[in-house]
Formats: sequence, C-alpha cells, structure tokens
Amino acid sequence: MNTFGHFLRVTTFGESHGPAIGCVVDGCPPGLSIAAEDFAHDLERRATGRSRHTSQRREADEVEILSGVYEGVTTGTPIALLIRNTDARSKDYSAIASQFRPGHADYTYWAKYGVRDPRGGGRSSARETTMRVAAGVIAKKWLAQAFGVEVRGFLSQLGEIRSSRPEMPDWADVESNPFFWPDAAQVPELEAYMDALRKSGDSVGARVDVVATGLPAGWGEPVYGKLDAELASALMSINAVKGVEIGDGFDTVPMAGSRHRDVMRPGADGRPAFDSNHAGGVLGGISTGQALRCSVAFKPTSSLRLPVEGLDVDGNVVDVVTTGRHDPCVGIRATPICEAMVALVLMDQALRHRAQCGDVATKR
Amino acid sequence: MNTFGHFLRVTTFGESHGPAIGCVVDGCPPGLSIAAEDFAHDLERRATGRSRHTSQRREADEVEILSGVYEGVTTGTPIALLIRNTDARSKDYSAIASQFRPGHADYTYWAKYGVRDPRGGGRSSARETTMRVAAGVIAKKWLAQAFGVEVRGFLSQLGEIRSSRPEMPDWADVESNPFFWPDAAQVPELEAYMDALRKSGDSVGARVDVVATGLPAGWGEPVYGKLDAELASALMSINAVKGVEIGDGFDTVPMAGSRHRDVMRPGADGRPAFDSNHAGGVLGGISTGQALRCSVAFKPTSSLRLPVEGLDVDGNVVDVVTTGRHDPCVGIRATPICEAMVALVLMDQALRHRAQCGDVATKR
Amino acid sequence: MNTFGHFLRVTTFGESHGPAIGCVVDGCPPGLSIAAEDFAHDLERRATGRSRHTSQRREADEVEILSGVYEGVTTGTPIALLIRNTDARSKDYSAIASQFRPGHADYTYWAKYGVRDPRGGGRSSARETTMRVAAGVIAKKWLAQAFGVEVRGFLSQLGEIRSSRPEMPDWADVESNPFFWPDAAQVPELEAYMDALRKSGDSVGARVDVVATGLPAGWGEPVYGKLDAELASALMSINAVKGVEIGDGFDTVPMAGSRHRDVMRPGADGRPAFDSNHAGGVLGGISTGQALRCSVAFKPTSSLRLPVEGLDVDGNVVDVVTTGRHDPCVGIRATPICEAMVALVLMDQALRHRAQCGDVATKR
Amino acid sequence: MNTFGHFLRVTTFGESHGPAIGCVVDGCPPGLSIAAEDFAHDLERRATGRSRHTSQRREADEVEILSGVYEGVTTGTPIALLIRNTDARSKDYSAIASQFRPGHADYTYWAKYGVRDPRGGGRSSARETTMRVAAGVIAKKWLAQAFGVEVRGFLSQLGEIRSSRPEMPDWADVESNPFFWPDAAQVPELEAYMDALRKSGDSVGARVDVVATGLPAGWGEPVYGKLDAELASALMSINAVKGVEIGDGFDTVPMAGSRHRDVMRPGADGRPAFDSNHAGGVLGGISTGQALRCSVAFKPTSSLRLPVEGLDVDGNVVDVVTTGRHDPCVGIRATPICEAMVALVLMDQALRHRAQCGDVATKR
Repeated sequence: MNTFGHFLRVTTFGESHGPAIGCVVDGCPPGLSIAAEDFAHDLERRATGRSRHTSQRREADEVEILSGVYEGVTTGTPIALLIRNTDARSKDYSAIASQFRPGHADYTYWAKYGVRDPRGGGRSSARETTMRVAAGVIAKKWLAQAFGVEVRGFLSQLGEIRSSRPEMPDWADVESNPFFWPDAAQVPELEAYMDALRKSGDSVGARVDVVATGLPAGWGEPVYGKLDAELASALMSINAVKGVEIGDGFDTVPMAGSRHRDVMRPGADGRPAFDSNHAGGVLGGISTGQALRCSVAFKPTSSLRLPVEGLDVDGNVVDVVTTGRHDPCVGIRATPICEAMVALVLMDQALRHRAQCGDVATKR
Repeated sequence: MNTFGHFLRVTTFGESHGPAIGCVVDGCPPGLSIAAEDFAHDLERRATGRSRHTSQRREADEVEILSGVYEGVTTGTPIALLIRNTDARSKDYSAIASQFRPGHADYTYWAKYGVRDPRGGGRSSARETTMRVAAGVIAKKWLAQAFGVEVRGFLSQLGEIRSSRPEMPDWADVESNPFFWPDAAQVPELEAYMDALRKSGDSVGARVDVVATGLPAGWGEPVYGKLDAELASALMSINAVKGVEIGDGFDTVPMAGSRHRDVMRPGADGRPAFDSNHAGGVLGGISTGQALRCSVAFKPTSSLRLPVEGLDVDGNVVDVVTTGRHDPCVGIRATPICEAMVALVLMDQALRHRAQCGDVATKR
Repeated sequence: MNTFGHFLRVTTFGESHGPAIGCVVDGCPPGLSIAAEDFAHDLERRATGRSRHTSQRREADEVEILSGVYEGVTTGTPIALLIRNTDARSKDYSAIASQFRPGHADYTYWAKYGVRDPRGGGRSSARETTMRVAAGVIAKKWLAQAFGVEVRGFLSQLGEIRSSRPEMPDWADVESNPFFWPDAAQVPELEAYMDALRKSGDSVGARVDVVATGLPAGWGEPVYGKLDAELASALMSINAVKGVEIGDGFDTVPMAGSRHRDVMRPGADGRPAFDSNHAGGVLGGISTGQALRCSVAFKPTSSLRLPVEGLDVDGNVVDVVTTGRHDPCVGIRATPICEAMVALVLMDQALRHRAQCGDVATKR
Repeated sequence: MNTFGHFLRVTTFGESHGPAIGCVVDGCPPGLSIAAEDFAHDLERRATGRSRHTSQRREADEVEILSGVYEGVTTGTPIALLIRNTDARSKDYSAIASQFRPGHADYTYWAKYGVRDPRGGGRSSARETTMRVAAGVIAKKWLAQAFGVEVRGFLSQLGEIRSSRPEMPDWADVESNPFFWPDAAQVPELEAYMDALRKSGDSVGARVDVVATGLPAGWGEPVYGKLDAELASALMSINAVKGVEIGDGFDTVPMAGSRHRDVMRPGADGRPAFDSNHAGGVLGGISTGQALRCSVAFKPTSSLRLPVEGLDVDGNVVDVVTTGRHDPCVGIRATPICEAMVALVLMDQALRHRAQCGDVATKR
C-alpha cells in the first residue's frame, strides 16, 4: 500500500535507481499557492552531501509540478510531483542482485514478491522519503496559512551522545548546524564523534524529536484514527524507525499518575492553560491545544564498509561487501522527513475534523 | 473513525455506560469455527476484579454472536458481537458532566464535538477495549489454524520494577500470576509494590511486550502499510499508550550498526536462520519469518483518589475528586488487549499479502 | 465488504433469520437529535404487510439505539442501531439448504464462500435493506436540518404500466396510495394489475424515481467519487436492482446535444437558473444546484409459487418450490430504500465537500 | 477523490492541457510482464483522429513506465505511468476562462473549488480517461493470464440507430470498423449518419455494451462492494455517462419473473450451465460464472459548433462559442474506456476474493 492518509491522501511511487520518483497529493484544498521553489528548502535539508557527515552522493532534486496547480494556485485536483533520478542507471548490479544484505529488506522483498529491483535497494531505499518531504511541504504550508501551525524537529540523540532535549529549542540554533542539534555547545563533540565513526566504518542510530505548535484543541479521530495512533503509523513507516513516543513516552512507565496528569488552569486567551505537557499534547487521541511532542528512534544503518556474511537466493553463504557512499547515521538527515510525516498527519486530521465537526461551536 | 484494518475490518461501538458495546468484524474468511465460549478466556484475562490489584468493578462480559456464524462456522458475512453493559446506568453523573478531569479525554472530546457522554468516560473509556479483545479472539484463532501463528504478551515493567524481559518467556509462568509477569521470583515484590501503591492512592505506568511466533516471511505492505507501522498504529490506539517499539526500539539509538544487523545463515528447514533478532522480525516493513517482537508503554492512570484541580466547561477552577473503583496500574490488564491488536494486524496483513501475492512462489 | 460510504460510513450486519440485524453509522456530526421514534415512519413505508400487494409477513421492526446518542443528541461517536428478528427461527430449512434457487444468490454465495446460511436467504435477503432505511433516516434528518435538502421517491413504472413520470410529483399523492404512485387516477388500474399478478403466481419488475431538492452546487468528488458514480453504486447495491439512470439516462442516447445541454440564465436568488434539467442535477460529477434526479430498475422477484427446475449442491436437477409469503413486485416497497441510499450518498458528499472545500467562497 | 479500487488502486492525475497526465497502479501482483508497447493498442482504439468521425485532434500518446517494473516484469511496487501532453499549451484561454459552457462542468467545478483550470476543461476533460485505458491494459493482461478472462465491448446504439445487440458479437467484425459496431451491414448507414451529423454541427449520444467472459463464479463483495455496484460506479464515473445496466437492465421492469430467472442445469464441465443470461452474470452481487454483460449510456457531447447562451462568473449572459475539434459522438471512442473500467473492477474483485476466500474449496 503506497498511499498515506485518509482525507489528504499521498501516493508515492518510484525506485531508488528507476527513471523517477514521484507522488500524488489528493484532497488538498483549493486556493493554496504552490510553486516548484517551495520544495527546495526542505529537500535541501534532507539531501545528502550537505556536510561530510552524510553520504557524499549528491542528489540534485528538482521537483516538477505535473498537475493540480493552475497559475500558481492549487485547484483542488490531484497534485502530482515528479523528480527524475539522475546518475543512477549505469551501474552493474548483477553482483548484489542475488544477495541478501543483513539488516536490509532484500530478503523480505524477495520472500514477499518473488522478484525485486536490486538497484540501490529499489523501493525500500530511503530515496522514497524524498517524496514524503515534498508532500510535507504542501502540508506545512497549508497548516501555517490556515491555522498558524508550525512543525519543526531536531536531533535529540546521536548514538551515545544525548542532547538536553528541550521542550522548545531555539530553532535558529537547530538550523545552524548540520546535525539539527539543539545545543550549540555540543556540536564540536558531535563532529569529532562522527569523524571517528566514519573512520571506523561503522554506524550508529539517532533520536529525532518533533514539535508542532499552534494546534487547536479537537484534532484527532477516536478511536482508531487517533492523532497519536496516526502519528505512530506515519513515523514508524519511515525507513529505519524502530520506536515512537508521544509526550513522555516510555518515561511514563515509572512515573506516578499524580505527577503525569497535566493540570489545566484558566488561560490568558480564554482557552485552558496547562501546568505541564507530559501527555505531549494529546488526550484520548485528540489534540489538547498544547504543543504536540513526539520522538522517534532510528536504528543504525546496516550499509557498512565492514564486510559481513550473508545468504544468496540459493541459500549459500556469501561475503557481503557494501560499497558506495552511505550515511554513518541516517538519523541526521531524517529530521525533515519526520517533520513532513507529522505535517501530513496534522493536515489529514484537520480535514477530517472539519468534515465531521465543521459546525461545532464550543465555548472556548 | 471507529474502524480498524483494511481487509479484515473491525468496527467497534458503544459507550462505557450506554446500553451495550459491540463490534462488527468484516472480511473474516468463511469456514472458521467460532462459538460464544471462545471469547471467555481472553475477556477473563482482560477483566477487572480478577485480583486485588485491578479495579474491583466486576464486569460479567457475555458475548452474543449476532451474525456471520451459521451452525458454529463463519460464513464470510460480517460477524457482529454484542456485550450488554450491566449495572452501569443508575448513577448520577451531573456532578462530573461539566468537569474536565486532568489527564482524561473529557476536555478534548468536548473541544472536538461540543457535546460528550460523561458517564464513565463514555466512548473514551477503556471499556471499548473489551471489543478489541473479542475481535482479537477471532484473529488469534484464524492465525493459529491457518498458519500456526501464536500471539502472546507479558508485562515487562511495572512502575519502577523491571523484569528480565526474556526474548521468549515461559508462557506458563506468565499466565500463573495476576501480573502476566515472566519472572516468577519477582511476583512477591510486585504484590508488595502494588499494595503500597494502592494504599497511597497513586498510580504507575507499565510496559507490555508482545511476541508473535510462527509468521512466514513476507507479511507487510510497503511503504505505508508496513507491518511495523500498522502495529504502531494499532498499539498506540489503545487507551493510555504513549510509546511503541519494534525489536530493540530506542535501544538501537546508541547501538553500532555492525552489531544491530541480524546475520542470516542457512537454516535447518531450508529457510534462513538468524543469529539474533534486534530487528524484532521486521525488515523494510515486511516480516522476516523470525519472532515478531514489540513493546508498549502505558502511562499511569489519571483516575486517582488524590484530589486535583481542574476546570469546568465555564472555565472555572474546580476540585476534581475521582471516586469509584479504578486500576492503580492499567497496564496490568492490558496484555490481552495488546495481543489482540497484534493479532488483528497480523490477520489483516495475511489477507492483504494473499490478495496481491497469493500465487508467489519463492525458492525458500 | 459491508461498509458503505467514505466520511459517513454505514456498516450493516445480520442475516434474514439470524438473531438480529443492525448497523453502525460512523462519522455523523455531533448535535443531531435522534430518537428511536424517528425510524418508525420510513421503516413502516418499507415494511411488508401494509397492503395486500406486498408480502403478508409482518415485520415489527423496533429500532434500539445502542450507542452514539446521549440525552437524545448525537455525540460524534458511532451510532449503533439494532433490530431483533422475531418469529424467524423455528422453521425447518433442511429441504432448501442444499438447493440453488434460480434467480437467487444461493449458488453464488455457495461458490464464493463454500458455506452459506440458507435461512430465508441469509445475508442476501432484502431484510438487510431495513438497516439501509434506518441509516438513511439519520442522513435525511441531517440533510434537512443542515441544508434543507429533501430526498423523496416514487414508483414510476410497475411491470407494463407506466406513470407520467413527472419531474416533480405531488408528494401527497405519492404517499396516499400503497404503490408510491404519482398519478392518482391510475391507482385502480394498478390494484387490478397486482390482483391478477398475485393470482397468476408470477411477478414483475418496477422502476423507482428519486428526486432530491435543495442541494447546493458543488457536492461531488471528481473523478472517482463523482456524485453520480456514488449514486450508481449505492442504488445498484440494493437487492434486485439491474439499472441506474441519472437525469434522462438512456433517453439521452438518441438525443441531440443542442437539446440536451441545459442552458443557464441569471436566477432570482443570484444563483443560476436552468431552462431544463436533462442532466439530472449533475455535471462533471458535481451537483449543479438543480434537483437531483435518478431512476432505478428493479427486476421481478424470483421467488414464485410457480415451480422451476434447479440444481442441488451435488449437481442434481431438483424441483424448486418456493413457499412462504413473497412480494409479487419487490419494487413497490423499494421506494424508501432508494431514498435512503440517495440520502446516505448526499450526506457523505456533503461531509467530503466540507473537508476539502470548507472555506471556499464563490461569488454565487 | 482520484483513486479507484480497493485492492487494486488506480490513482490518476493531470489536466487536459497541463504538462502531463498519469496514473499510479498500486496492488498489482508481481511477476506480470509489462512493456510500454502493451499500451499502444488500446490507446490507439481510444485515440482521436482515427477516422473522420472523431475529433481531428491527434494525440500521440506515448506511455512512459516510471516505476514498478524491473526487467520487464512487475515487482509488486506501484506502477506509475506518464504521458506528456504535447501541443496543448500555447492557446489563449482568457476568453473562456470566465465563461460557463452549458452542459459542461465549468460551473460546477467553479462552484465547488472557487478556482478552475479552464484550459481544455482541465481535470474534467475526457483526456483523463486516457489513463483509465492505460491502467485497464494492465488489468486486462493480468485477468487474461491468471484466469483467461477477456473483456470486450462494442457500440450497440449510435444516436437513433440501433444494432442487433448480440449477446456475443463476432469480435473481428467489431474491430473492423471505426464504430466498434457489431453488425457489418449497418456500417454504411452509420457513416452517412455521422457525416450528416457532423455537417449539422450537432451531436448525439451512444450506447456501449461490454461483455466479459471466462469469469469464475464467486467474484464480488456483498453487500456494498457488489460486483454490479462496483461496475455501476466505475462506468458512471466515465465522462458523459448517464446510465448503467447489468444484464437486461431496464428491460426487466415489464418482464415476468418466471421468464427472468435463469435456470441452471448440469454443465459439461461439472459447473452449472444456464439456459439464459437475463441477469448478466451476477446474482446477489457475485459472479455466476456466466458472461458478464453490462451496458452504458453516453449523452451527446455539449461541445457544439452551434452557439448557445451561457453565463459568466459575474452572472452575465454571454454567447458561448465552442471552437476546436470535437467529437460529434463521444461514445464512439468510449468502448475501450468502458472495457478498461470493467477490467479494473474485475481485477480488484479477483484480488478481494482471493484475500478473504483464497482457500475456499467448493464441490464445483
């Protein structure tokens, strides 16, 4: 299933080394200004080759808008976006076509489908996330214009190094370093850590935190389309993600209930103010109006220079050698992907809420 | 949205203190034996009142099969299950009808819908999870018969007390204590901990681990219906869940890639054997054929004897006093709910896989 | 698949002679008044036994509201409706359990599922349409309150007898005779025709026309959720329906384009007025703001007193004798069913429109 | 909503005069051979400019396969198809951008979305059906290989001229004339009729019949995804369609039930044989194993040389003059579109059937 969302539906397609990748965004309200330039910033944030700490493959991702936009404005019809894959077709893949790399989806795709496109991981490549970021740009723009909602993320842990995990970082700091790191003072340490890691040929995981501000109370569809359930699905669907938390997440397990429950008080604007935000902005699957907070675990990439034993399709043990330019920590580039998925969930939930409850008036 | 699943679709309905709760299970293959007695075991495991460590409210949950079963066998038509709510209608709810309890969904339901059923939490009550368990019984039975898949869970952390978190517990041990705890020696410690907690009037969270065995390789729908993404959505949709992990989850963040990637070797049965299972049985969103491992964080319940300040619908600060019989740790009864959600995801994925790839033959 | 609709989702369940039939209506906006009495009128219009021209089986259909309504008002949670089947369980079905009646779904259900509930046609019985009518009551009420939309139908042909098929009948006339017939003068002819038919033991088909008034322009989802496409699906899904027309339908085939295109002029209320309504109120799958007109063909029922040869499950030729009380023309009672399906489509489209285009302002 | 289907999902995008049109076909089983050349035949049958009886605009539709196919074989990942629009961008549309042409979707798109792409009808243009035909090619090929199912159509009425409407035409005859007409002797009459029509500047409607052979019994999803209901939706969603019939359709209204019910006898191959096929191959929404027969009404096109009064966006009466090269009967080119939609429904139903009932064994 290559479609995400219910009212805002994003369908992505394309293999890592096929002719192109693309997506179709269906259900976007009409009247939103969208231009090809809008996609550049977030695609650049996701792109490889920005610093020595990510893969040195240079993707020049030019988005072409194929439909759904007329005279710079969305018309309500499906928005198709296309990015041609360049420099990706000449290689010889025969050596790896019959091998299953440990930690990769080679074996599982083959077990499922009986055939697979081995070029660069085919459909299972993180290349697919480019289109998530592109679709997310539309969602971010609509959310900002229609509701003032902002969705931003940062790297909160890189391998063994932990950030301060602020509830609300200084976003200028986050964007000023190649790690999306909230604590400027730690950046030299990160640089050294990554340099050593790169030399070792190994990889580590990362944790990304996403914060969305400006949400009204009331978004989220109980009981099976809960805001947090949809976020969990969206974030877990990103390549290499192994865990998702909302608010305090697993830290709530040893916590006392008397501490966890966020107390409400009368707020300045007539809406409730909260003394704390352990819940991460969601109660009963519905937004509380506080900042939405979620956190994601990325596993270490399995594409290493270090050789490893694997199997081939005939069941023989083979030496798997991964060449090419890979990320020693995929999580570094994952921040805009996480932001995109959160934005897509929020826009979908906003539209769903409007469908059922468009005429609800509450006192606050 | 009150429907879960794509090919196997479960629609639940009902409020905690309304006339009844129920569900419709649509898409179940014909020919499966189902009787009302089949539901008793798992509903009993979920029920309150089994030990002094859960709420003392006694739910006598009798499942009535309304449709979809003829002469004890499913016919392929929708299976409707109904449980009448008993003893739930006499109370006076006027005091709490206008209050928003901190940590509960009272405020968010009201903000979303403008009206809400305040009786026992209405639709946001964990009462709804009864029908998840009932639907899960059907999924468990089909998975066992059609594939030999078994889905079982255990409590791996209770507040501050951690179990050994075995990859594969002794299930007899798990079922022999009221905590679903895998380490028999710790049970007295748990008893004492819960007794003290109950006296204090406070609550704690819990962690539940679920293990599914017997899966073939190949289940899971890339890229937006990934097995792990669907699990994340399913588990996060359970009341009080704040985090979901697949395999090693957040522990993968500081892990080296050279350690994390699970090496395959030729297996005894012609299928690959794996040296480890850090991935939790999923690669690229598709099952590897190993045991599926996931873990869930439950927050501490917010229904405490300890009074707290809250708001009413007019924005006034009020004292919220929660009376009634509540669980000091909701996670204790959550194990069968988690199992049910995993089973529903697996059955859904099995049917989806069969639809698209029913005729795929791979060499192993 | 037993769920109808996208934003307003109706899931029905139940067999003709099982314990109960029911439905779950999910996605209904909160704040709508609904009481059990609301269902009586349309269920009575659909019920058998109102006149000698329909089956003499008397269904006493009492709707129980199980959820989703609190203090008489919808809360936004799923609305479950239940009707117990009475007097339906004592019969001996062993004779027909292994027979395939010609013109019925006996053989196809068996071929699909390998098992079937033979009691009264099981799930394939028109009994299922009772819940469509019940769900339609909710849609009709919401449409009337929120938009002033009225959905009404009439019988426009009964076997060989054709009505005048007025574009807008006198609805009091339609409701004043047991045939939902728009031309009072023809009623005696219909009575005689049906009396003769009943004596003959044979059956005939019927045509039902549905008119919805008060629609705004703009409802309908191009290009695969078009208003007319959804209507076609909804109406064709009713038992015994073999054809659906929108506007002039098949009469447009020989028509000149210069006559068919409905010319717009400035209307009294600032909205366009149309010189004609050949299109039936839909252009490009979107409502024009004119009356919506559609028409449905019902085949003659295959349950006849006249014996016929059939097959049994072992492939033997058997004499099929249908006893019991059947309708010589199922179309007579079908008018409220058609209305219900049109109302459900319109409400679904209204919600979908609001989701995507809730903030669109056009000049007229 | 621009996605069609449930298990086989086709999402189309693109405007008539935008940069490109395309589609994404998701859910196709792996292992099917697909090449760009496969699309040529049906696209040519749909294309304008094949004879003097269709629009003289010449579309050179080259399909590019962007994804989902590796070494000529489907891999189970989404198949994206792209066709660039050529020669479509230079024109000046300012004159018609503010006009609502009678009988077109100009007004309804504007009323719905508040903006619209006026170039060539934008998204509401029949240009969109090109991608339906392309997607249908995949479905036809899979159905033929997996089941021996063939889906073919013919023109059964052109304006006032009726064909013999054979239950099973000689398909070589149908393909040998530019009208897809089953009766060779009538072709000169059709030529003359169309020549006169073209001179008059007016248009007429058409009726297309589609026949699918080779279906097993058992396809179709009761009760809201019935085979006939899905066909009705699929066919009604085609531009200009105003009516859909299954089997004898509206002719069943005056028919006696004793004649309509198709009697089964033991067949040569162990499966039942039927004495007739009034039902059109569907009972209870499930295929009987007979030929599937359906019929579709196309209205006359509203794009005429004959001027007509219309409105502009400001409510003024304007003279609408349609220039350009239009079809005097859109139904002539519609046969492959109807075939494609039927094929897509059948493939979707085949996959759905396999999901739920993949292991059903019946005696015949």
